[in-house]
Amino acid sequence: MRVAVLGTGGVGQTLAAKMAALGHEVMIGTRDVQAALDRAEAGWGAMVLSEWHAEHPDVKLGTFADAAAHAEVVFNATAGMASLDVLEAAGAKNLDGKILIDVANPLDFSKGMPPTLSVCNTDSLGEQIQRAFPGAKVVKTLNTVNSNLMVDPSLVDGGDHHVFVSGNDEGAKAEVTRILKEWFGWKNVLDLGDITSARGAEMLLSLWLRLSMTLQTPMATIKVVS
Amino acid sequence: MRVAVLGTGGVGQTLAAKMAALGHEVMIGTRDVQAALDRAEAGWGAMVLSEWHAEHPDVKLGTFADAAAHAEVVFNATAGMASLDVLEAAGAKNLDGKILIDVANPLDFSKGMPPTLSVCNTDSLGEQIQRAFPGAKVVKTLNTVNSNLMVDPSLVDGGDHHVFVSGNDEGAKAEVTRILKEWFGWKNVLDLGDITSARGAEMLLSLWLRLSMTLQTPMATIKVVS
Repeated sequence: MRVAVLGTGGVGQTLAAKMAALGHEVMIGTRDVQAALDRAEAGWGAMVLSEWHAEHPDVKLGTFADAAAHAEVVFNATAGMASLDVLEAAGAKNLDGKILIDVANPLDFSKGMPPTLSVCNTDSLGEQIQRAFPGAKVVKTLNTVNSNLMVDPSLVDGGDHHVFVSGNDEGAKAEVTRILKEWFGWKNVLDLGDITSARGAEMLLSLWLRLSMTLQTPMATIKVVS
Repeated sequence: MRVAVLGTGGVGQTLAAKMAALGHEVMIGTRDVQAALDRAEAGWGAMVLSEWHAEHPDVKLGTFADAAAHAEVVFNATAGMASLDVLEAAGAKNLDGKILIDVANPLDFSKGMPPTLSVCNTDSLGEQIQRAFPGAKVVKTLNTVNSNLMVDPSLVDGGDHHVFVSGNDEGAKAEVTRILKEWFGWKNVLDLGDITSARGAEMLLSLWLRLSMTLQTPMATIKVVS
């Protein structure tokens, strides 16, 4: 499948590498390809992009619009507070009718650590994106786990834990559930409801950040029992 | 031990019944004892108080201040949006130096279902209570589970799931952890940190409400894995 990953950080690199290894045609989107390749530093959990790309030459690099135009399915793997700007740059016409898998969290680091959310409770980033791009089929998922766990849930407890999907389009949620299971190996995918249920998945971050501090690992996650 | 339970709803009744059955001297606090006993209706998950009290004559009823004055440990089992008013009525002098176990959630039902939180993200009900009653040792816990599960975690998956504690006083958290384990049978108690970490436990409610709708049970809860 032709896939776009918007964002060159650790989450984007991890998703792109996994999907390329599975044989998909992956293009990473960034604001300015040459500027991104020229950067000598990397963000948290990421490799310097030029070094990462040398190891993954099968992944194409393009602008946000190039990547979205190329893709059948688009992953939003940008920092949550930048997501709406990035998707604007990708272009509504390049997102129309496509599944937009939103794995971002609207984390606001400006008020100290641990970060707070820039939107929550009565709204969510997932809903903001769906409202801004009504032609896209937004599915919120994977934002509750570390990027390594996103593409290999078996790294914790043999994969015996949960990931969630939220979205308004039932067909899109079914296809994303298939991708999560067949590509990444998720056993337990729970449908929380329409896109407003992304609030719950995003607000879990407040607990998740404390769990990762308490347990001193970014691999903490949750299994739902009842 | 002498215990107060503030609130006559389903959570208060369940906590009081369990602790009385264990032999503790339990007093339920309410605004007006006679008015509470005269009410012919019960809230969600609760019994009519007079009928409940006939089945639990060993539990005393008193005003909020009576109950707090009676107790060594106070449970806040009121509706979250009423908690500060109730604790004001209980009286700071009756809470000073005591462990105040806050099991409430600041759920706001005025904006439709599912409810939102009246405070979150940059603050929490647990923090509001600690600020308003600096002499009390506030420990946030149990708010993430249904009341039946609070006092009998073995009802789900043999108790193989988690409850959290948040608070500024390490001794109080240790005592509450002992109560959770020895009185209620919790196996897994995770210390999230100071009282600001109550934000995470309270914000979990947004996900919890969706899980209970998706799974069609109020018994849904989470096990932390890493």
